[in-house]
Amino acid sequence: MRKVVEIKSKRFEDYESFLTEEDRKEIKRLSATLKGRKIGMYSATAFGGGVAEILYSMIPLMRDLGMDVEWEVLEADNSFFNITKKIHNGLQGQSGSLTEEEKEIYLRVNEKNAKSTNVEQYDIVVVHDPQPIPMIEYVRNGKQKWVWRCHIDTSNANPAYWDLIFSFMKDYDATIFTMKDFIKDASKLKKVALIPPSIDPLSEKNRELSRSEIETVFQRYDTDMTRPMLVQVSRFDPWKDPLGVVDIYKRLKKDFDIQLAMIGSMASDDPEGWLLYDRLLRHVGEDFDVKVLTNFNGVGAYEVNAFQRGAFLILQKSIKEGFGLTVTEGLWKEKPVIGGNVGGITLQIKDGINGYLVNDNDEAYERSRYLLEHPEEVSRLGKNGKEYVKKNFLITRHIMDYLRLFVSL
Amino acid sequence: MRKVVEIKSKRFEDYESFLTEEDRKEIKRLSATLKGRKIGMYSATAFGGGVAEILYSMIPLMRDLGMDVEWEVLEADNSFFNITKKIHNGLQGQSGSLTEEEKEIYLRVNEKNAKSTNVEQYDIVVVHDPQPIPMIEYVRNGKQKWVWRCHIDTSNANPAYWDLIFSFMKDYDATIFTMKDFIKDASKLKKVALIPPSIDPLSEKNRELSRSEIETVFQRYDTDMTRPMLVQVSRFDPWKDPLGVVDIYKRLKKDFDIQLAMIGSMASDDPEGWLLYDRLLRHVGEDFDVKVLTNFNGVGAYEVNAFQRGAFLILQKSIKEGFGLTVTEGLWKEKPVIGGNVGGITLQIKDGINGYLVNDNDEAYERSRYLLEHPEEVSRLGKNGKEYVKKNFLITRHIMDYLRLFVSL
Repeated sequence: MRKVVEIKSKRFEDYESFLTEEDRKEIKRLSATLKGRKIGMYSATAFGGGVAEILYSMIPLMRDLGMDVEWEVLEADNSFFNITKKIHNGLQGQSGSLTEEEKEIYLRVNEKNAKSTNVEQYDIVVVHDPQPIPMIEYVRNGKQKWVWRCHIDTSNANPAYWDLIFSFMKDYDATIFTMKDFIKDASKLKKVALIPPSIDPLSEKNRELSRSEIETVFQRYDTDMTRPMLVQVSRFDPWKDPLGVVDIYKRLKKDFDIQLAMIGSMASDDPEGWLLYDRLLRHVGEDFDVKVLTNFNGVGAYEVNAFQRGAFLILQKSIKEGFGLTVTEGLWKEKPVIGGNVGGITLQIKDGINGYLVNDNDEAYERSRYLLEHPEEVSRLGKNGKEYVKKNFLITRHIMDYLRLFVSL
Repeated sequence: MRKVVEIKSKRFEDYESFLTEEDRKEIKRLSATLKGRKIGMYSATAFGGGVAEILYSMIPLMRDLGMDVEWEVLEADNSFFNITKKIHNGLQGQSGSLTEEEKEIYLRVNEKNAKSTNVEQYDIVVVHDPQPIPMIEYVRNGKQKWVWRCHIDTSNANPAYWDLIFSFMKDYDATIFTMKDFIKDASKLKKVALIPPSIDPLSEKNRELSRSEIETVFQRYDTDMTRPMLVQVSRFDPWKDPLGVVDIYKRLKKDFDIQLAMIGSMASDDPEGWLLYDRLLRHVGEDFDVKVLTNFNGVGAYEVNAFQRGAFLILQKSIKEGFGLTVTEGLWKEKPVIGGNVGGITLQIKDGINGYLVNDNDEAYERSRYLLEHPEEVSRLGKNGKEYVKKNFLITRHIMDYLRLFVSL
């Protein structure tokens, strides 16, 4: 059974103001070239995470540009997703390897999906992340162009997993990575494109909000807009160093009357997430100027938007990071972002220009302190940040990169 | 559409060892009298809370005793349950009242349920709590006997809600309360029975566990059995005073190397619950000898059982309490229970005999301290507690009380 995702339509013309005239024309030209080509996207799931967030914006815009794009998700059960979670972690460097039985399940689910969907109808097939990558082995009839899009930081991939994924990757007509550092054995791939992710400036998470909308959200969570608010939006996960962020806040709090909002999303079936949530709240203690907020408190895309827009500065103290869309989200809202000097964050933060890249808590503390003492710097960095995102990390640029790649195939 | 609950069968003979020979005979005699009578039970839901827990044990045992008992739950949506939550809170003393529209929804849902189910088939209809109480108005044909069972502490009921519920209650052939203090206007009711709730000694929450089973659970939650463990099992709700329990622990901790487990259940759609969970963890701080555990950490009936059995003493510092089944659960496991001197707790704890009734934190601290200094007292009180529960609060006694009432109708 095919699982085709339904998506609300969007109009490209609403996004034209974010584009230079040159880029607008280029996108129109590329779209015209691709008109009538059928494009199929495959991903593991339609909910949660950056991949789905991007596709919900990218696909309706491509459609409005005249392309025929469909998005299908895998039909699979938990045993499959437990295996692909291992693959995901292995590609990020975790040790171990799949058993023969696990590998077999991984392949059979892909075979079944490949055969039950009608992939031959597409001219271009775009496969996202490792879950559906083996599909190519089961449907290839030589007529479609196949593109694999990797959203993971594979710079320290465990070879056992890399080799498995690479055995499919090499058959693809093109492979997309976010950064050069994430690629290995590039010479054995047919074509490699470097395309970073993007945000949708008109989505609920990023659209403009009025001052009173922001204030209403701040009030709802018992925070105020008269004192500087530091914000980190991230899963509660050791790689995002939430305890480090609290330590930085505590040091700053001695000299500044500030607030901190730690915003994450939680799943009821994730015991590790609960442990860190527990750990974080205990570390925060009874300083109620620190808020720890999640979907269970009613925080969704709109509330995240409001907290980012009401922030004094944004932190993203990751220790490891594929891209970190929340950095771009913060920059877009004209906020300086202080981010860990790792992975995709280094693509987004230009040190001293739109924020600061930091290597440890001390540096993060010093930079935050500097901004609290020099609020005029905040608006300078903020303006630069928005400009930088406008040039580099909006969904329109992302679409243009995809279209260029499609045309070149 | 009828929503009939499916229940796993149980054998009465497995419970005979908990009964005196006299009571065993009495139950058999009453059952024989009622043989062939059809009994229908109605409640709001088949999941969560003490009512469902009791019915899952009571009904299969009644069936095994030869009675024909069915359990049906209401078919209703969230708007109905939001209204009945208001009624529940109002009966516990909260201010406010229902709007005419809310009252109308409340009645119409009951009418619809009454008409879609085939209540005329039953000889005795037992309605639990306020949600289905109006059903009687829509199906009464004079042939059935109607019993309403109130599980709520109504001693300070808001008159707006009490009057509404009473207008149905007065039509019932019998009304069951847990305690005398919970009844008003008894003289206008046809018949009143005082029947406290009960526990099932063979359920997953109360059955015997081996030392190694208990140890395995303690290890899984990074606690140990070599140091005294204090346990409170309760929703995280101000009426259960979880912060007070932590304060008592903190004072004791200065002199004793103890641990504390605060165990509650959480729902993803309960923002107030999240606020108190947050508040509690912050108050606990980074003392990892205190565990705050919920269903999201994988704690279910079996784990609660293990924590109660591995405890040194049990706390139930309620400020208001309908009954507090966890008190009986603790006593059954031969643990002294230190409980708030309120509501149904006073039925269960005999001060100085099987635990202590306390009026404030200081008393709770003093009693806990005394037991930590006199561990020999723990086993004396514990033995008394088990004996007291065996006589008063097992499901078998509960069934006998119901059968007596049914026979008297």
